[in-house]
Amino acid sequence: MSSLRILARRAATASSRTMLSETSASNGRFFLSMSNKATMTTLASSSSSMSASEGSNLQAALPNNQKTSRRYKSTILPTSDSDKIVLPPMVYIAGEEMTHYATQLVLKQWINPYFNTDAWETFDLSCKARDESNDQVLKDAVDAGKRICAIFKEPTITPSVTQVKEMGLSQHLCSPNGAMRRGWNGITISRDTIHIKGIELGYANPVLFERHAVGGEYGAGWHSVGKGTLLTTYIPDDDNERPFVVDKRDLTDDNNVCVVYHNPYDNVVDLAHLFFKRCLDAKVVPYIVTKKTVFKWQEGFWATMKKIFDEEYKEEFVKAGVMSEEKSELQHLISDAATMQLIRWTGGGFGMAAHNYDGDMLTDQIAQVHRSPGFITSNLVGKTDCGTKIIKEFEASHGTVTDLWNDHLAGKETSINPLGLVEALIGAMNHSAMLHLENNPNDADAKDVHDKVFTFTEQLQRAMHNTFRYGQGTRDMCGPTGFTTEDFIDKVAWRLGRYLAKLDEAEFSYPPPELSEPDRQFRRNYDVDHEAAKKLFDKYDKDGDGTVNFEEFEKMLVKMGLAPKTKEVVQQDVKEPDV
Amino acid sequence: MSSLRILARRAATASSRTMLSETSASNGRFFLSMSNKATMTTLASSSSSMSASEGSNLQAALPNNQKTSRRYKSTILPTSDSDKIVLPPMVYIAGEEMTHYATQLVLKQWINPYFNTDAWETFDLSCKARDESNDQVLKDAVDAGKRICAIFKEPTITPSVTQVKEMGLSQHLCSPNGAMRRGWNGITISRDTIHIKGIELGYANPVLFERHAVGGEYGAGWHSVGKGTLLTTYIPDDDNERPFVVDKRDLTDDNNVCVVYHNPYDNVVDLAHLFFKRCLDAKVVPYIVTKKTVFKWQEGFWATMKKIFDEEYKEEFVKAGVMSEEKSELQHLISDAATMQLIRWTGGGFGMAAHNYDGDMLTDQIAQVHRSPGFITSNLVGKTDCGTKIIKEFEASHGTVTDLWNDHLAGKETSINPLGLVEALIGAMNHSAMLHLENNPNDADAKDVHDKVFTFTEQLQRAMHNTFRYGQGTRDMCGPTGFTTEDFIDKVAWRLGRYLAKLDEAEFSYPPPELSEPDRQFRRNYDVDHEAAKKLFDKYDKDGDGTVNFEEFEKMLVKMGLAPKTKEVVQQDVKEPDV
Repeated sequence: MSSLRILARRAATASSRTMLSETSASNGRFFLSMSNKATMTTLASSSSSMSASEGSNLQAALPNNQKTSRRYKSTILPTSDSDKIVLPPMVYIAGEEMTHYATQLVLKQWINPYFNTDAWETFDLSCKARDESNDQVLKDAVDAGKRICAIFKEPTITPSVTQVKEMGLSQHLCSPNGAMRRGWNGITISRDTIHIKGIELGYANPVLFERHAVGGEYGAGWHSVGKGTLLTTYIPDDDNERPFVVDKRDLTDDNNVCVVYHNPYDNVVDLAHLFFKRCLDAKVVPYIVTKKTVFKWQEGFWATMKKIFDEEYKEEFVKAGVMSEEKSELQHLISDAATMQLIRWTGGGFGMAAHNYDGDMLTDQIAQVHRSPGFITSNLVGKTDCGTKIIKEFEASHGTVTDLWNDHLAGKETSINPLGLVEALIGAMNHSAMLHLENNPNDADAKDVHDKVFTFTEQLQRAMHNTFRYGQGTRDMCGPTGFTTEDFIDKVAWRLGRYLAKLDEAEFSYPPPELSEPDRQFRRNYDVDHEAAKKLFDKYDKDGDGTVNFEEFEKMLVKMGLAPKTKEVVQQDVKEPDV
Repeated sequence: MSSLRILARRAATASSRTMLSETSASNGRFFLSMSNKATMTTLASSSSSMSASEGSNLQAALPNNQKTSRRYKSTILPTSDSDKIVLPPMVYIAGEEMTHYATQLVLKQWINPYFNTDAWETFDLSCKARDESNDQVLKDAVDAGKRICAIFKEPTITPSVTQVKEMGLSQHLCSPNGAMRRGWNGITISRDTIHIKGIELGYANPVLFERHAVGGEYGAGWHSVGKGTLLTTYIPDDDNERPFVVDKRDLTDDNNVCVVYHNPYDNVVDLAHLFFKRCLDAKVVPYIVTKKTVFKWQEGFWATMKKIFDEEYKEEFVKAGVMSEEKSELQHLISDAATMQLIRWTGGGFGMAAHNYDGDMLTDQIAQVHRSPGFITSNLVGKTDCGTKIIKEFEASHGTVTDLWNDHLAGKETSINPLGLVEALIGAMNHSAMLHLENNPNDADAKDVHDKVFTFTEQLQRAMHNTFRYGQGTRDMCGPTGFTTEDFIDKVAWRLGRYLAKLDEAEFSYPPPELSEPDRQFRRNYDVDHEAAKKLFDKYDKDGDGTVNFEEFEKMLVKMGLAPKTKEVVQQDVKEPDV
């Protein structure tokens, strides 16, 4: 019997008193809650409903897309290796450095004790493995993704010229993401805020974002050229149509760069459906962001979005109460206006869809307003070449976290927050189970596996979130007293075991503390300039009494351009197109 | 004798007591100053130096680029029409609607009483005049700009399809700005924050911005195309070089847009010199903003900037104390990171240079953070075809203000703030006087005109600024009790006459009140959602005592992503290029 299962068994026999003492024993690690009153109220009100499980409390508060009904109880814990649930096929793309190390620990302690992952196809996309296989491994991974349609990807490195030398690679390696977007007919990169039930973050409610996954300058052809003529010709496939010159320009400078790109717009139809469905599910208002007032060719993106919205979603949004009858017109935002709205609308509860580059700019801003790239998803949605099946690839928004990896190699303690990685893993596991059931609609086993996977991932989320809430999170959330990488993974493993063993019991009725937003200073590299902040404060504390009252506060919001505006006004900031 | 001059004479004989009573009589129009203490201190300290003129007080606090030494006194006021100062040639481009009306009033009451503007060449770029001349008037204006090199432009309208019909135009009219950027070999659009000495605005210190005036998607060729091949070929002018294919791409979608553009980089050298010189003059740290990590062709923009900085400016910046010896490397900011820095760095005191589209996004954001497009300049800097002379065109950043024009036509009171328009007019007049002196270096008359123009524009700025400070500004600054369009122009005209008549006297030693930032709610269309603001306040007022203390304030700053960061940290937010 593995030590993890022993732990789980122990937990299963533990009384709720043991659990309480465990949490109070770690009181020293709690970060200060500013909302003690709220916590006490929650505790008080829940004491009268001791029989309600902690799980359903959590579920009630989860965003819609994270809710699943619990169908199976006490059936996850295997009694032997052969008894483990066999997971359906999934592509697992391994990367390197700190995120690889952390995800391997997660697999070992959170996944492997319960599941047989033999059907997963793993591809090592470390620079070394790609180099040694002459990048065949990337091609193989993309092919496997086309077959299996559910992919989890660890962060990888696209080596710079310097890194190629340092790592002793024999060749330049391209970004795997580009190959994947092409190979999987990428439609959108969905980048949504990640929320932890019971802990405040930047946006109070979900922000959904669709960034068109193809087109624009990312796929541009370009060249540095001198004086001359640049001629761009279109030759139609249809022999009945005649070729024509798209653009002919004289380059009169000695130094020019010329840039050619295209936006393939066929999949904007799919993008529209994905976007509006997600907005409907999450009950948020959709906005389309473009620069079409000047970049006239972007009109098609908007026109497709609007057509599909009007024909198939407008009524739905009204029916769901997300939009009112009077204000059910799809809203357009000019890209430059959108940068300010993202700062103003910290209540969240909206969705945006944009072209590739605008989406890049705006989602990076969302990540920073919400907390960091660790708290935003990055899911590529594509489809198979035949167009019949959706491919979903899930990854964290951040990189391989080189600095912590160097610390780890040097034998120092590290504390990496695996939330973004694990959200991606959960997304991929759920998607794979769903596909497996779709592919085997009348197979009782497929149904069983599907339900077990969803039950498990729900409990895993709960265990992870509650570990943060008990003040046992990583240092980016709990400050210097937070857990190390390994301790956090141990603690969640222990709690997960408890939850899985007790699925049918009702002893977990004490909800963990509600926490106000953990200090952002806890984040690595986040170094707030206290002196400058103090100066700012003094500026708004006009009467110098050491506090800012509401009048001063509102003035400050207005001054910083952050004051919430009545939505109608947003549309009125019209100026002559700047061409 | 014109009534204006009578007023000016009267003012010249008025005692300082009269002046004080004039300001106190209008107390009812004062907007509440939150910094009374500071004002009192200033008043107290200046009472010991009663002989210092108000003008030099003002001057001491002006940004460097607005400082001029007063060379001439009491020599501006003409005694007859033939005695007026003859202004050197300047191109005056007239537009339409409310801004045309306001600028004509400004000319009539602020400029014409003192100057003979017969050498100005005026071009009417109203839609009607352009249509009737088959747009010859635009060509003529561009040609005149090439000759004269100093241009003032009122806001104009580029008519939409609907407007073409409404106005009964016979043709579609292109944006005049595009024609000007091409005709004048545009290098940069300088968009800097406008400051009023003694009144707080969004950025405490100047923010300078250079937006590359050419290239990028604004000048793109494009076409909507179906399946086929897009072939882009470069044919060099030099017969010894061979043509080559820049890009060949198969378009496999039924709906595509293809886009071709180029960035002419020759003038980035000029841009670099203009930018670094301006940053040096204003003593602000320069930043270069690009997306070169992914859009590799942008490397050339950065490389040129860095080369010129290292070779010709690095030492200067260290010598001037703007950068330290240790931190004298030119800084690069990725475009998406820059959107957040613009919100954080409200202290101002920095400069940015960027490509065309990024510059558009970022300067719109600057305008909103600072207050509105009325408080930011928009100056096109180009050069003559022979490359020997700089052409400068000055315009306000805003449009023709249609809603106020409709009010005006309906006989309603209006209150347009002409600050942006007048800053542009002042810029053009100064530049024209400077060019005139450069073209006639040994001409005593040219020197005399130059000095008089600079003296006049300095007093005009002072009169306008002080009118705001005396609470006699327009309603966007002073709220509902503010002056109408006509009253404001009258009041400034009166004050200007006073100042010009008293250049050699020292009675204006009482500085006008220092004012904290006027409510942004005063702005037309700026409708703050008080309820939402109150919710935000309650969120940060954790202890519910109706005030936010420093701890709560700093948490809020951090949460909103607005906390000032130590500058080094900014560079560390590195992630894998997203391609």
